[in-house]
Amino acid sequence: MAGSLAMRAVQSSAASQEDFYKHGMRSLSPDSPVSHVLEGLCHFREQPLTSPSQFVRPTSLLFQQAGRERRWDAVQAHESVAAMLHNSQLDAFIVVRQFRPAIYAVRWRAAKAAGLPEPPPAAGLSYELCAGILDKPGKSAEQVCCEEILEEVGYRVSPQQLACCAGSVISSAGVTGAPQAVFFAQVDESMRARAGGGTMAASERVEALSLPVAAVDAFIADASLAKTPGLCFGLLWGRQWLQQQQQQQQQQSSQRT
Amino acid sequence: MAGSLAMRAVQSSAASQEDFYKHGMRSLSPDSPVSHVLEGLCHFREQPLTSPSQFVRPTSLLFQQAGRERRWDAVQAHESVAAMLHNSQLDAFIVVRQFRPAIYAVRWRAAKAAGLPEPPPAAGLSYELCAGILDKPGKSAEQVCCEEILEEVGYRVSPQQLACCAGSVISSAGVTGAPQAVFFAQVDESMRARAGGGTMAASERVEALSLPVAAVDAFIADASLAKTPGLCFGLLWGRQWLQQQQQQQQQQSSQRT
Repeated sequence: MAGSLAMRAVQSSAASQEDFYKHGMRSLSPDSPVSHVLEGLCHFREQPLTSPSQFVRPTSLLFQQAGRERRWDAVQAHESVAAMLHNSQLDAFIVVRQFRPAIYAVRWRAAKAAGLPEPPPAAGLSYELCAGILDKPGKSAEQVCCEEILEEVGYRVSPQQLACCAGSVISSAGVTGAPQAVFFAQVDESMRARAGGGTMAASERVEALSLPVAAVDAFIADASLAKTPGLCFGLLWGRQWLQQQQQQQQQQSSQRT
Repeated sequence: MAGSLAMRAVQSSAASQEDFYKHGMRSLSPDSPVSHVLEGLCHFREQPLTSPSQFVRPTSLLFQQAGRERRWDAVQAHESVAAMLHNSQLDAFIVVRQFRPAIYAVRWRAAKAAGLPEPPPAAGLSYELCAGILDKPGKSAEQVCCEEILEEVGYRVSPQQLACCAGSVISSAGVTGAPQAVFFAQVDESMRARAGGGTMAASERVEALSLPVAAVDAFIADASLAKTPGLCFGLLWGRQWLQQQQQQQQQQSSQRT
């Protein structure tokens, strides 16, 4: 177990747990800094799921393949949307940081199995795209995405301002199969409508962060930070979009002169 | 439901179900073409998970946050590794295609809810990085990764040939929290040891595909193809690596002259 990815992460997060703003990251949600996200996290424990769950609905998929009966166990999950935002004034991407119980649990179990002390709550911090589930009938993916952007990071973006990075990525092809649409938008502080940080109603504690474009490669390569592949994809897609914009502007200005 | 991402995918996959080699993709596993992957898939149905499952172990995570008792339902899943491969002779990336019951189920439910006919089995095809779970104690992530490369796509790669794209991505931060290490390697046909296509023992039916580097953007933008965000990240990371190699070579040759 000591060689597992989770164990490597426990060791590196224990070593770097105090440095919450590596790679030039800055908080953009003054009401929800990392201290708010981690406030009073304690008394972590685990038990088998016995009562029905709104979010984890285990299911058995049965089918025939080449004449054989097969069974594949899976989980029903919601469709979702995600957004990669670039702030043109800061020349930074907008990243969301929150405590993810499932990530903490993986590291907590690994430490337990190795006879090590319980990891600090910061071991459950995750870096992700601003995102949300599609559970509002009658609303388009683009509309839900704009609502999530407003709630989590505080910018007012219209559906028309969204570019599509990928129409249907499947984060968990083996377990849930649920699709996610990934969008991109450019924002600036004139579009700020609220502080961000999630909604009180959902008792969300989310920190909005800016990550300088110049720090993208170092951020992705930092194995001590738990991040989604969707975020890694969004960061590279966004940087490529910026480079293409720059090239177009250079061509236009060289044609003028 | 008709506006859902799954329903969009059902409609677009019904329209394009016969075109299995879009974007210049070519099969690299002659024993396991798409017809083998889809062979005899039928009689799909679903029932609640009642007996214990090796792959889907539902769990309740309990903790306190800011003085409140909280519960988060999750699923225990294996750690895993994934590899993005570039074939220098073909100037193409190596992509894996397989039938994913969980993806098919999402589209099958959407069609059912809309009163539409059952989608074709091809609606469950997924495009992914070559990958595998870390379930062999005592083996490093790099060793397991090389074994998966050999099994799924047939190239003999040594752990020393792997570059790290990202040390700890979490595909499903909400549901499983399980980390995955993503590696990159460059291969050519002199490293081919077998046909690829998965192992008979695991009754895997996997197709290895080459995807031309020049087609990466069109592939990612194609919403009719179900792909993981990890694959989208790997493709952009790999292309960036190739561009950096090219620039270094140009600099070296210009210094020489």
